[in-house]
Amino acid sequence: MQVDVLIVGAGPAGLMAALWMARTGIRTLVVERNSGPTKAGHADGLESRTIEILDSFGLGQKVWNKSNHTIDICLWNKTSEGALHRQNISANSKPGWSRFQESTLGQSQIETILLEQVLKSPYVEVRRRTAPISLHIIETELGNHRNDLHPIHVGITAIPEPEFDSTLGGDATLEGTKETIQARYLLGCDGAHSWVRKQLGLKLEGASRDVSWGVLDAFPITDFPDIRRRCIIKSEFGNLMIIPRERKLVRMYVQVSAGLANDYSTKNRDPEVIMRAVQKIMQPYRFGASRLEWSTIYTVGHRYCRELSRYERIFLAGDAVHTHSPKAGQGMNVSMQDSYNLGWKLASVIHGVATQQILQTYHQERLPVARRLIEFDKRICRGMLDAENTFDEDHRKALVEENTSMSGLGIAYEPNLVVAELTEHKANGTEKFFPIANEETSLSTQPDRMKAIRLGARMPSALVLGQADSQPHELQRVFQSTGEWHFVVFGGDIVDEQQRRRIDHLANALSSPESIVRKMNTRRLLYPIPVGCLSIYLVHSGLRTEVDIGKLPGVFRPPDDDTGFDYGKVFVDNESYHVGGGKAYEEFGILPRGCLVLLRPDQHIAFIGDLEDTNPLEHFLELIVSEL
Amino acid sequence: MQVDVLIVGAGPAGLMAALWMARTGIRTLVVERNSGPTKAGHADGLESRTIEILDSFGLGQKVWNKSNHTIDICLWNKTSEGALHRQNISANSKPGWSRFQESTLGQSQIETILLEQVLKSPYVEVRRRTAPISLHIIETELGNHRNDLHPIHVGITAIPEPEFDSTLGGDATLEGTKETIQARYLLGCDGAHSWVRKQLGLKLEGASRDVSWGVLDAFPITDFPDIRRRCIIKSEFGNLMIIPRERKLVRMYVQVSAGLANDYSTKNRDPEVIMRAVQKIMQPYRFGASRLEWSTIYTVGHRYCRELSRYERIFLAGDAVHTHSPKAGQGMNVSMQDSYNLGWKLASVIHGVATQQILQTYHQERLPVARRLIEFDKRICRGMLDAENTFDEDHRKALVEENTSMSGLGIAYEPNLVVAELTEHKANGTEKFFPIANEETSLSTQPDRMKAIRLGARMPSALVLGQADSQPHELQRVFQSTGEWHFVVFGGDIVDEQQRRRIDHLANALSSPESIVRKMNTRRLLYPIPVGCLSIYLVHSGLRTEVDIGKLPGVFRPPDDDTGFDYGKVFVDNESYHVGGGKAYEEFGILPRGCLVLLRPDQHIAFIGDLEDTNPLEHFLELIVSEL
Repeated sequence: MQVDVLIVGAGPAGLMAALWMARTGIRTLVVERNSGPTKAGHADGLESRTIEILDSFGLGQKVWNKSNHTIDICLWNKTSEGALHRQNISANSKPGWSRFQESTLGQSQIETILLEQVLKSPYVEVRRRTAPISLHIIETELGNHRNDLHPIHVGITAIPEPEFDSTLGGDATLEGTKETIQARYLLGCDGAHSWVRKQLGLKLEGASRDVSWGVLDAFPITDFPDIRRRCIIKSEFGNLMIIPRERKLVRMYVQVSAGLANDYSTKNRDPEVIMRAVQKIMQPYRFGASRLEWSTIYTVGHRYCRELSRYERIFLAGDAVHTHSPKAGQGMNVSMQDSYNLGWKLASVIHGVATQQILQTYHQERLPVARRLIEFDKRICRGMLDAENTFDEDHRKALVEENTSMSGLGIAYEPNLVVAELTEHKANGTEKFFPIANEETSLSTQPDRMKAIRLGARMPSALVLGQADSQPHELQRVFQSTGEWHFVVFGGDIVDEQQRRRIDHLANALSSPESIVRKMNTRRLLYPIPVGCLSIYLVHSGLRTEVDIGKLPGVFRPPDDDTGFDYGKVFVDNESYHVGGGKAYEEFGILPRGCLVLLRPDQHIAFIGDLEDTNPLEHFLELIVSEL
Repeated sequence: MQVDVLIVGAGPAGLMAALWMARTGIRTLVVERNSGPTKAGHADGLESRTIEILDSFGLGQKVWNKSNHTIDICLWNKTSEGALHRQNISANSKPGWSRFQESTLGQSQIETILLEQVLKSPYVEVRRRTAPISLHIIETELGNHRNDLHPIHVGITAIPEPEFDSTLGGDATLEGTKETIQARYLLGCDGAHSWVRKQLGLKLEGASRDVSWGVLDAFPITDFPDIRRRCIIKSEFGNLMIIPRERKLVRMYVQVSAGLANDYSTKNRDPEVIMRAVQKIMQPYRFGASRLEWSTIYTVGHRYCRELSRYERIFLAGDAVHTHSPKAGQGMNVSMQDSYNLGWKLASVIHGVATQQILQTYHQERLPVARRLIEFDKRICRGMLDAENTFDEDHRKALVEENTSMSGLGIAYEPNLVVAELTEHKANGTEKFFPIANEETSLSTQPDRMKAIRLGARMPSALVLGQADSQPHELQRVFQSTGEWHFVVFGGDIVDEQQRRRIDHLANALSSPESIVRKMNTRRLLYPIPVGCLSIYLVHSGLRTEVDIGKLPGVFRPPDDDTGFDYGKVFVDNESYHVGGGKAYEEFGILPRGCLVLLRPDQHIAFIGDLEDTNPLEHFLELIVSEL
């Protein structure tokens, strides 16, 4: 069997990659050891950025409705009299940073929702109870990305009954290749014990700490007042984290002794053992449960892999390249964000609309994220082990960072082939300026800048109105994950004549027959899948009632069979009657003179320029776009 | 065949009634002449209140997502130089009155969504191509509402191929009873030519005006800048209304001459005839269409029926009791609101949890609405016929009223068996007060009071937080249409000791074994369907972090198998971190001392009292509730 992409593993990372392939029409096979989605337990944290990403595939509302939104975080400790008390309560997600707040939903549900969407596509097959057992690479073909060459040969075999338990990690008993899959690209999304990673001779590097934690998913019956809030509780009997979940479930992370861990395992993983540790910490509050749904005990490890891809052909994502404690609820998020970063690049190269060199940026962009994730997890774990009465400054800071750099909101990729440098400009021959007020582009956390536009970071959202109908839109939601680039012209007050002339001039440049923008869109007429095309949007700040959409340049009004032209590409930053709005320019940090913002297909900002910067824009794109 | 309820007609009114029956588990047969839902055209306007009602059945989000939200209304006329110009643009739905704004969605879609939900119930059967042909009433059984008596006998017959066109209205060709349906109750939701109404010897009374209007559903191609906004255009060539719809459709109402109407009918209802009238008015704007989806021409009539029910056994709803021009987009709304008003009453009587006398309130409550609808429509039509350059004050006023009294937001039913009188109270023996700041209860339009709580009116919404988890909730959304009454205790600042004592005292009274509230809820333990039960909610205004839900009286924490008690009945009027809130008391007009608010199963306010008013509340409920 020949496929474009072979994905090993149908967990969150594998299914996110498969979702991209489904959306962009890439022939893909997913093989997975387990017979169905995760049943209970495992990951449950959904950061704001992850929900934004799911929303870009049309799955945001479903996930948001099903999940529990974790509004508060409470820090509890002992008073000097020894009573447990709430020391602090605050917002778990910083207001204004995202349309969504940190939420919880079991991995089981996430996998089911992703899988349902993936299977709607005729391009992707998911084969369960199937494992890879051999890898053969035709080295002479590696450098040529022609679509008839399939240099990655993977032998796969069916896994016999009874159901193979992936958590055991071994595969020594599997014998006999049943079939060889010839693939152009191979993705290892196969977890901490990744078979693909091992074939490449790569290891997770780092250390384990000799500390065990119990995890318990329960339906609690208690008089503890914050049971439906996220809590960190520090007591003389150990430390505990409470995470309210979907349905009426609550997840608990509890510090356990070596003795207790041993007891748990000799008693056939009896969740009651962990429950007793929880009860001890929670006293004097009563703490029981109507049902215990899942439990485990893990030893904290902090490890990552220094190489995320090889030959621009084989890629590793998710737990295959970073493992850490689950306490910050990051795992499922960073895993899905890994393959979300990779998917559009792969699809673009396979469709022949981008140079294969963009595949190098996967490692370049995600390795620093993996490294930071591990460093961050060490801080969170150290904080959780602290003495019973302290939440020191670094622990508090780390908790705040969860929703920024770690969740993806704060991540700004460094300049590379698909992220341009921000350059200084001159207006009127002398006055120097940057096209946006906020020129910071580093990866560091910038708590007050999540609303601003930053090169390499994800496009933030703001409420804007449709020019044609005044309907409110979250701007970020317009930029769906289709494989298209999104080119947003912030035109300023186009009712002003001078500003209008600048827009007309820009439109002329974009619609010239030589414009690369125009070349990218010729593909649109030939294929139903818009991978590598470029959609142009205008977001102006003039008075909506003074602008006639029909009189704007044609580049902002692409043809539409039903209505002559598409009314949906022009937005205005005015206040709505009903739901706010009118603050996009201010929040984004856009100057009145406007700017150009180019978004990659993953909503990350690739280029920022002045309205006259069509030349540097063309130059930037020409290095990426393949000749058709 | 014996059923509890026979519904004639599966249009919006019939299906809304069927939805109640489905939800409350009432054996119901719906018969309908047509072979499927409406295909195209017909009604399309959805007022805010109608979407609120659909949301109370869990269908609000679906309808909201599918519909077009009509944000602006524009008035266009000719300048003194004869050019068409926009004279005014403003909000089509007054900000703040509802969570939803006036929207448009074809009747076809509405019927499909309702039907899909109805058919999920095993209690309701929908039989198509079926018409009633005989009515026989066992008069001796009429007064006894025992559930084994079925005094309404309706002969029904199948309609032969080819498909019967209900718009022709005749049924003379139908012969031969195929089956007799023995029903306890009969609903005539069978349109302007209602067969049921005719059997009762009732007529629609009123007049027709000799004015014809053309209706055209088209996908327009035009340079008119407001094509995606609701517009009223007055020109020397006649008047026109533009209503943007779902998909890219636009509906137009255009004044046509007798000659044109004749032309249309002789040319086999050629939509191009109407299109030419539109084009003439729209000049100098170009106006074409890529497709014409539906058209009709109608003559304006304003008629209503003076009797909406007979024997408390047979009820008429929708177009069967009021017909008028479609220009205000009211028809589908008032029709669904008719049967929404009736459904819970019927279900309560059939389940034996309410006295049959509440059925009288259907006529009492809905006749004034029908009468006002007809008066209102006359004003709207007169306004539309006005000279080309004026939008007089009454016309403008009428346009505003569309979203208030007419849409249901402003309707406040007069005191009757299921709406108490508001009474004045004395505090501290002397000082007089009303339990809420706003004591107005009349049916008249009160544009600034849609956010306030008013006796007989629908419960408005406001954003409140869950006490247990701080999650934001639209309060109105909590009160789903299940057949339950909703009893909302606005407890004030319960952190204050005195206020807390009042709440404890109230809770004692409610949980006394003699309390009717307690009696109503004994049923909850016996039946899975909560019709006639009463859910108790607390909405307090204290600081959320100072209140421990587990220490509140048990009446606010009903038992829950999973978590000991239900965390979902206590809300707090505090500001949220992310989405506003904290203004419910202020907007509702509730004094700091708090009040009791009893909602009927249709979200209309039945009773308002002081926190100590358990006696008058019990007295009010005892007249309604049947002995079990």
